[in-house]
Amino acid sequence: MNSLVSKTCSACEIGAPLVPEAEQIVLLKDIPKWEKNNSEIPSLYREFKFSDYEQAVKFSNMIAELAEEEDHHPKIILEWGLVTLQWWSHKIKGLHMNDFICAAKSDEIYNSFE
Amino acid sequence: MNSLVSKTCSACEIGAPLVPEAEQIVLLKDIPKWEKNNSEIPSLYREFKFSDYEQAVKFSNMIAELAEEEDHHPKIILEWGLVTLQWWSHKIKGLHMNDFICAAKSDEIYNSFE
Repeated sequence: MNSLVSKTCSACEIGAPLVPEAEQIVLLKDIPKWEKNNSEIPSLYREFKFSDYEQAVKFSNMIAELAEEEDHHPKIILEWGLVTLQWWSHKIKGLHMNDFICAAKSDEIYNSFE
Repeated sequence: MNSLVSKTCSACEIGAPLVPEAEQIVLLKDIPKWEKNNSEIPSLYREFKFSDYEQAVKFSNMIAELAEEEDHHPKIILEWGLVTLQWWSHKIKGLHMNDFICAAKSDEIYNSFE
Protein backbone atom coordinates (compact mmCIF):
# COMPACT_ATOMS: atom_id res chain seq x y z
CA MET A 1 0.00 0.00 0.00
CA ASN A 2 1.13 3.48 -0.83
CA SER A 3 2.31 5.07 2.43
CA LEU A 4 0.49 8.31 1.58
CA VAL A 5 -2.80 6.47 1.91
CA SER A 6 -2.21 5.80 5.60
CA LYS A 7 -1.86 9.52 6.34
CA THR A 8 -4.60 12.00 7.23
CA CYS A 9 -4.86 15.60 6.12
CA SER A 10 -3.81 18.24 8.60
CA ALA A 11 -5.48 21.61 8.91
CA CYS A 12 -4.11 23.85 6.18
CA GLU A 13 -4.17 27.50 7.14
CA ILE A 14 -2.65 30.53 5.48
CA GLY A 15 1.09 30.25 6.04
CA ALA A 16 1.13 26.43 6.11
CA PRO A 17 4.15 24.98 4.32
CA LEU A 18 4.15 24.30 0.59
CA VAL A 19 5.81 21.00 -0.30
CA PRO A 20 9.30 21.88 -1.60
CA GLU A 21 9.90 21.11 -5.29
CA ALA A 22 12.46 18.37 -4.54
CA GLU A 23 10.02 16.60 -2.23
CA GLN A 24 7.24 16.94 -4.80
CA ILE A 25 9.35 14.96 -7.29
CA VAL A 26 9.77 12.15 -4.75
CA LEU A 27 6.07 12.15 -3.78
CA LEU A 28 4.93 12.09 -7.42
CA LYS A 29 6.69 8.72 -7.77
CA ASP A 30 4.16 7.32 -5.28
CA ILE A 31 1.26 8.58 -7.41
CA PRO A 32 2.64 8.05 -10.95
CA LYS A 33 -0.69 8.50 -12.70
CA TRP A 34 -1.00 12.07 -11.48
CA GLU A 35 0.46 15.05 -13.26
CA LYS A 36 1.45 18.36 -11.82
CA ASN A 37 -0.14 21.32 -13.49
CA ASN A 38 2.44 24.11 -13.50
CA SER A 39 0.03 26.98 -13.96
CA GLU A 40 0.10 30.04 -11.72
CA ILE A 41 -1.35 27.94 -8.89
CA PRO A 42 0.16 24.44 -9.17
CA SER A 43 -2.20 21.50 -8.75
CA LEU A 44 -2.26 17.73 -9.12
CA TYR A 45 -4.65 16.30 -11.69
CA ARG A 46 -5.64 12.93 -13.08
CA GLU A 47 -8.35 11.62 -15.39
CA PHE A 48 -10.32 8.51 -14.36
CA LYS A 49 -12.22 6.57 -17.00
CA PHE A 50 -15.44 4.61 -16.49
CA SER A 51 -17.54 2.37 -18.70
CA ASP A 52 -20.77 4.20 -17.92
CA TYR A 53 -22.21 7.32 -16.32
CA GLU A 54 -23.46 5.60 -13.18
CA GLN A 55 -19.97 4.45 -12.22
CA ALA A 56 -18.54 7.91 -12.85
CA VAL A 57 -21.24 9.47 -10.64
CA LYS A 58 -20.60 6.88 -7.91
CA PHE A 59 -16.85 7.60 -7.98
CA SER A 60 -17.51 11.38 -7.81
CA ASN A 61 -19.64 10.86 -4.73
CA MET A 62 -16.98 8.73 -3.06
CA ILE A 63 -14.47 11.51 -3.73
CA ALA A 64 -16.93 14.05 -2.28
CA GLU A 65 -17.17 11.89 0.86
CA LEU A 66 -13.37 11.74 1.08
CA ALA A 67 -13.30 15.54 0.72
CA GLU A 68 -15.64 15.97 3.69
CA GLU A 69 -13.75 13.41 5.80
CA GLU A 70 -10.44 15.15 5.14
CA ASP A 71 -11.96 18.65 5.10
CA HIS A 72 -10.10 19.19 1.85
CA HIS A 73 -12.09 19.75 -1.32
CA PRO A 74 -10.86 19.15 -4.87
CA LYS A 75 -12.27 20.26 -8.18
CA ILE A 76 -14.31 17.29 -9.48
CA ILE A 77 -15.18 17.41 -13.19
CA LEU A 78 -17.83 14.86 -14.09
CA GLU A 79 -18.55 13.98 -17.72
CA TRP A 80 -19.94 10.84 -19.37
CA GLY A 81 -17.48 8.04 -18.55
CA LEU A 82 -14.84 10.43 -17.27
CA VAL A 83 -13.99 12.11 -13.98
CA THR A 84 -11.10 14.56 -13.74
CA LEU A 85 -9.81 15.46 -10.30
CA GLN A 86 -7.68 18.42 -9.40
CA TRP A 87 -6.22 18.81 -5.92
CA TRP A 88 -4.49 21.91 -4.61
CA SER A 89 -4.51 23.95 -1.43
CA HIS A 90 -6.45 27.15 -1.90
CA LYS A 91 -5.21 28.87 1.25
CA ILE A 92 -1.54 28.55 0.35
CA LYS A 93 -2.10 28.70 -3.43
CA GLY A 94 -0.11 25.59 -4.15
CA LEU A 95 0.67 22.03 -3.13
CA HIS A 96 0.47 20.98 0.51
CA MET A 97 1.14 17.46 1.72
CA ASN A 98 -2.67 17.12 1.95
CA ASP A 99 -2.88 17.19 -1.85
CA PHE A 100 -0.54 14.24 -2.25
CA ILE A 101 -2.39 12.32 0.48
CA CYS A 102 -5.76 12.95 -1.18
CA ALA A 103 -4.44 12.07 -4.64
CA ALA A 104 -3.22 8.71 -3.29
CA LYS A 105 -6.56 8.13 -1.54
CA SER A 106 -8.39 8.97 -4.79
CA ASP A 107 -6.32 6.28 -6.56
CA GLU A 108 -7.26 3.78 -3.85
CA ILE A 109 -10.97 4.58 -4.33
CA TYR A 110 -10.62 4.20 -8.12
CA ASN A 111 -8.80 0.88 -7.72
CA SER A 112 -11.82 -0.44 -5.79
CA PHE A 113 -13.81 -0.09 -9.06
CA GLU A 114 -11.54 -2.37 -11.08
CA MET B 1 -42.87 28.53 -15.86
CA ASN B 2 -40.27 28.72 -18.57
CA SER B 3 -41.68 26.87 -21.59
CA LEU B 4 -38.36 25.13 -22.15
CA VAL B 5 -38.88 23.27 -18.89
CA SER B 6 -41.95 21.50 -20.21
CA LYS B 7 -40.00 20.03 -23.15
CA THR B 8 -38.09 16.76 -23.26
CA CYS B 9 -34.79 16.10 -25.00
CA SER B 10 -34.95 14.33 -28.34
CA ALA B 11 -32.34 11.86 -29.52
CA CYS B 12 -29.39 13.83 -30.85
CA GLU B 13 -27.52 11.94 -33.55
CA ILE B 14 -24.78 13.06 -35.91
CA GLY B 15 -26.47 15.34 -38.43
CA ALA B 16 -29.14 16.59 -36.00
CA PRO B 17 -29.85 20.31 -36.41
CA LEU B 18 -27.83 22.96 -34.59
CA VAL B 19 -30.00 25.77 -33.23
CA PRO B 20 -29.56 28.72 -35.64
CA GLU B 21 -27.83 31.78 -34.16
CA ALA B 22 -30.97 33.95 -34.38
CA GLU B 23 -32.99 31.37 -32.47
CA GLN B 24 -30.22 31.02 -29.87
CA ILE B 25 -30.55 34.74 -29.08
CA VAL B 26 -34.28 34.31 -28.48
CA LEU B 27 -33.84 31.16 -26.38
CA LEU B 28 -31.12 32.76 -24.23
CA LYS B 29 -33.72 35.31 -23.09
CA ASP B 30 -35.56 32.43 -21.42
CA ILE B 31 -32.44 31.42 -19.50
CA PRO B 32 -30.86 34.82 -18.77
CA LYS B 33 -28.40 33.53 -16.19
CA TRP B 34 -26.68 31.34 -18.78
CA GLU B 35 -23.87 32.50 -21.01
CA LYS B 36 -22.87 31.14 -24.34
CA ASN B 37 -19.24 30.15 -24.57
CA ASN B 38 -18.11 30.99 -28.09
CA SER B 39 -15.12 28.69 -28.18
CA GLU B 40 -14.51 26.25 -31.06
CA ILE B 41 -17.41 24.14 -29.78
CA PRO B 42 -20.08 26.52 -28.41
CA SER B 43 -21.67 25.62 -25.08
CA LEU B 44 -23.99 27.06 -22.46
CA TYR B 45 -22.56 27.57 -19.00
CA ARG B 46 -23.63 28.89 -15.65
CA GLU B 47 -22.19 28.98 -12.13
CA PHE B 48 -24.42 27.99 -9.19
CA LYS B 49 -23.43 29.06 -5.69
CA PHE B 50 -24.15 27.16 -2.45
CA SER B 51 -23.59 27.90 1.19
CA ASP B 52 -21.91 24.58 1.87
CA TYR B 53 -20.40 21.51 0.22
CA GLU B 54 -23.29 19.20 1.01
CA GLN B 55 -25.75 21.35 -0.93
CA ALA B 56 -23.40 21.59 -3.89
CA VAL B 57 -22.99 17.78 -3.93
CA LYS B 58 -26.76 17.32 -3.68
CA PHE B 59 -27.33 19.68 -6.61
CA SER B 60 -24.67 17.87 -8.68
CA ASN B 61 -26.44 14.58 -8.06
CA MET B 62 -29.80 16.04 -9.08
CA ILE B 63 -28.20 17.26 -12.31
CA ALA B 64 -26.69 13.80 -12.86
CA GLU B 65 -30.19 12.32 -12.45
CA LEU B 66 -31.56 14.83 -14.97
CA ALA B 67 -28.75 13.84 -17.34
CA GLU B 68 -29.72 10.18 -17.16
CA GLU B 69 -33.44 10.95 -17.54
CA GLU B 70 -32.80 13.07 -20.63
CA ASP B 71 -29.92 10.89 -21.87
CA HIS B 72 -27.94 14.10 -22.26
CA HIS B 73 -24.86 14.60 -20.13
CA PRO B 74 -23.28 17.95 -19.25
CA LYS B 75 -19.90 18.76 -17.79
CA ILE B 76 -20.46 19.18 -14.04
CA ILE B 77 -17.67 20.95 -12.17
CA LEU B 78 -18.02 20.57 -8.40
CA GLU B 79 -16.00 22.72 -6.02
CA TRP B 80 -16.63 23.89 -2.45
CA GLY B 81 -19.82 25.96 -2.56
CA LEU B 82 -19.83 26.15 -6.34
CA VAL B 83 -21.11 24.04 -9.22
CA THR B 84 -20.45 25.06 -12.81
CA LEU B 85 -22.51 23.40 -15.54
CA GLN B 86 -21.71 23.30 -19.21
CA TRP B 87 -24.21 21.92 -21.72
CA TRP B 88 -23.45 21.23 -25.37
CA SER B 89 -24.16 18.47 -27.86
CA HIS B 90 -21.08 16.38 -28.45
CA LYS B 91 -22.35 14.61 -31.56
CA ILE B 92 -23.08 17.82 -33.47
CA LYS B 93 -20.30 19.84 -31.79
CA GLY B 94 -22.54 22.69 -30.83
CA LEU B 95 -25.89 23.75 -29.43
CA HIS B 96 -28.97 21.59 -29.97
CA MET B 97 -32.39 22.46 -28.57
CA ASN B 98 -31.64 19.80 -25.91
CA ASP B 99 -29.01 22.11 -24.41
CA PHE B 100 -31.46 24.96 -23.90
CA ILE B 101 -34.03 22.55 -22.43
CA CYS B 102 -31.50 21.11 -19.98
CA ALA B 103 -30.19 24.55 -19.01
CA ALA B 104 -33.76 25.61 -18.15
CA LYS B 105 -34.32 22.39 -16.19
CA SER B 106 -31.05 22.96 -14.31
CA ASP B 107 -32.31 26.41 -13.29
CA GLU B 108 -35.55 24.84 -12.05
CA ILE B 109 -33.59 22.35 -9.92
CA TYR B 110 -31.44 25.17 -8.50
CA ASN B 111 -34.51 27.26 -7.70
CA SER B 112 -35.80 24.37 -5.57
CA PHE B 113 -32.82 25.00 -3.25
CA GLU B 114 -33.70 28.62 -2.56
